[in-house]
Amino acid sequence: MKGRFLMLRVNGQRLWDNLNEMGRIGAGERGRTRLAFTDEDLEARRLLVRWMEELGLEVHTDPYANIWGLRAGREELPPIVVGSHIDTVREAGMFDGVLGVLSGLEAVRALNEAGVSTRRPVAVISFSDEEGGRFSAGTMTGSRLMAGCIQLEELAEKRDQRGVSWLEALERSGFTGSSSILRPHAYLEYHIEQGPVLCDKGARIGVVEGVVNLSWMRFTFYGQANHAGAFPMERRRDAGLAASSATVALNRLAFELGAGTVITSGQALQEPNLPNIVPGRAVLTVDLRSFKEEVFASGLARAEAVVEEEAARHGVEVSVELLTRLEGAVFAREMTELVERTAGALDLSSWRMPSGAGHDAQIMSRLCPTAMIFCPSEEGRSHCPEEFTSQEDAVAGADVLLNCLLELAED
Amino acid sequence: MKGRFLMLRVNGQRLWDNLNEMGRIGAGERGRTRLAFTDEDLEARRLLVRWMEELGLEVHTDPYANIWGLRAGREELPPIVVGSHIDTVREAGMFDGVLGVLSGLEAVRALNEAGVSTRRPVAVISFSDEEGGRFSAGTMTGSRLMAGCIQLEELAEKRDQRGVSWLEALERSGFTGSSSILRPHAYLEYHIEQGPVLCDKGARIGVVEGVVNLSWMRFTFYGQANHAGAFPMERRRDAGLAASSATVALNRLAFELGAGTVITSGQALQEPNLPNIVPGRAVLTVDLRSFKEEVFASGLARAEAVVEEEAARHGVEVSVELLTRLEGAVFAREMTELVERTAGALDLSSWRMPSGAGHDAQIMSRLCPTAMIFCPSEEGRSHCPEEFTSQEDAVAGADVLLNCLLELAED
Repeated sequence: MKGRFLMLRVNGQRLWDNLNEMGRIGAGERGRTRLAFTDEDLEARRLLVRWMEELGLEVHTDPYANIWGLRAGREELPPIVVGSHIDTVREAGMFDGVLGVLSGLEAVRALNEAGVSTRRPVAVISFSDEEGGRFSAGTMTGSRLMAGCIQLEELAEKRDQRGVSWLEALERSGFTGSSSILRPHAYLEYHIEQGPVLCDKGARIGVVEGVVNLSWMRFTFYGQANHAGAFPMERRRDAGLAASSATVALNRLAFELGAGTVITSGQALQEPNLPNIVPGRAVLTVDLRSFKEEVFASGLARAEAVVEEEAARHGVEVSVELLTRLEGAVFAREMTELVERTAGALDLSSWRMPSGAGHDAQIMSRLCPTAMIFCPSEEGRSHCPEEFTSQEDAVAGADVLLNCLLELAED
Repeated sequence: MKGRFLMLRVNGQRLWDNLNEMGRIGAGERGRTRLAFTDEDLEARRLLVRWMEELGLEVHTDPYANIWGLRAGREELPPIVVGSHIDTVREAGMFDGVLGVLSGLEAVRALNEAGVSTRRPVAVISFSDEEGGRFSAGTMTGSRLMAGCIQLEELAEKRDQRGVSWLEALERSGFTGSSSILRPHAYLEYHIEQGPVLCDKGARIGVVEGVVNLSWMRFTFYGQANHAGAFPMERRRDAGLAASSATVALNRLAFELGAGTVITSGQALQEPNLPNIVPGRAVLTVDLRSFKEEVFASGLARAEAVVEEEAARHGVEVSVELLTRLEGAVFAREMTELVERTAGALDLSSWRMPSGAGHDAQIMSRLCPTAMIFCPSEEGRSHCPEEFTSQEDAVAGADVLLNCLLELAED
């Protein structure tokens, strides 16, 4: 590609302005909140559709309210799809997901302005309910529906705190369509890293080799609540202490497993949770992620063993539930090599890495060759108002997306 | 005393029946609840006053609603005071506090029935709000007021969840009196152990040598909330992990300090407390108790150091607040020896021990020679409906109380 004559650039200021405009939708005291199918999400969707139409894209919605903006190719072939999502977590930053969708629009704009026609059609997609913060339906619901990993019927009983189900919210949204699903030729997702690796490495572009495997377990520790003064140390069965020991041991395990494996005891509760009572019961969630399948499998087994050992050491019973297991993805080599090569052609330093966060791309990789492009997240902050990527970095990733798209669309 | 001609016994069945009758007041689905100055507490107080009057006691209430039942002596001297409290924690057992007050009444009944007159007057006392579960006023409020450790004015702003202050509740109770405080000649409190030591030692009577020193600290850990997938282990500042490490280290410290020292991390909270976010903030309360003053002092200093070390190890800031510090008490040797000797004379095995729980006796020990008698708590359970002492054990302690009282009242 170094020798390719055409290297396009997006209009960086326009991308930045659009990010800010979208970022005002759902804005509150802290950040912005656009949970799936809420008024705020629907307002953002309407703005996206308007922008798509202004670009001359043919807007489709599929039965899952995923929004497609189609730019015809010279031939009627499966399209190259780029995108991400515009729903957010609570009190979010303005980059997560949105950057990928709006960069897709900017790429189309750049093609339009340069008068470029592509062999294959190009589609910009925005997936429904990627974040999963409203319903108990999990994350990446729009892409999982599209890929057939789940069926709509399963969402009839996935409700929000007010009792509205995913299915009802979908129907009320007005964004359902009957378009037959377009099978993509390839999928490319541009996203913020949400971690500090690119900053640490001083790289501008993350070449994402895949998405880690993920497991959520919940451990419940059954000890005995006792008087904190009258009950001697050596007689206690302290469920809180057992959970704390487990947390410490699991942290050690993550380092032992290595290979980028992360283990997080994110949620911890104990009962009765009073200063002068030895905790009788404790609950701990364990989030374990690893890219390499064999490390992941051994990590899961060792995590359970470690927790059981710590519980036993403190005379406490423990039970475990599997809350979630999400298979990761290994992206197609030709796709990651394209991203790496394109970054190089644009004189942007790059770094190969798996994604520790889940993304629609890992679902799409079941349907077609897929890759992701990361740009740096300042201090690795994400899912909070402090989430930040500089305009320069945000635009650099969009340029990579645009030029990858150009090459793929001629494939 | 072995040679003393008169060894009286209480009527064990009557004591047991009265315990059960009092235990029905405030009974709910789980145990009974008689928080200070609630309708349930007032109903229990009325029953107590009726029982006192039936015994011919002269009932006084002091300005703090502590209830005194006075039996005249042959001489007008400072009285021997026995008692405890009849308020309870939420969902309590029927022994904590109540056993001491009702055993005092049984002792008086035994004196009456045996036609014994004593040189000194005898008083049975029930202290107000020993448990402290309703207001934010702390524990042992009735005895602390009586001993002048706190003043009534300080309670004007100590409110319950509905905004009623301690002072308002006191006034509405109708149990305030103007009687001048009687300075006791000695105070003796009979109570359940609330721990497993007597059962473990196979002893029927605990000879309580004093009450442990107590400190409550609250540590707040300031780390950084981050994405559980995208943020590498070595870059984290996990506040929950720091708190867990502190809990483990504090537990180890308790064993290192020895001398019966107990350390409890009873209350632990972390934020945002979500499975997929590295905890950014955590709070931990630490309850540290030790009988020996020098062990207590060194324990407090080492606990703070240990927590700071664990926080630093995980790159987390920590701050500490002192929530409570309660000086313990060392009981008068002649009083503990009296209890031990009396148990022996009644052929009851005994065990010397400090109390790990706080009691009105530790406050009373500032006013006069004081001691406590413990009876076994099955499995050490207390402050829960499962709290249990067998009738045989409950009665044995009451016999010790009665015969100690007999000797003290001739002093």
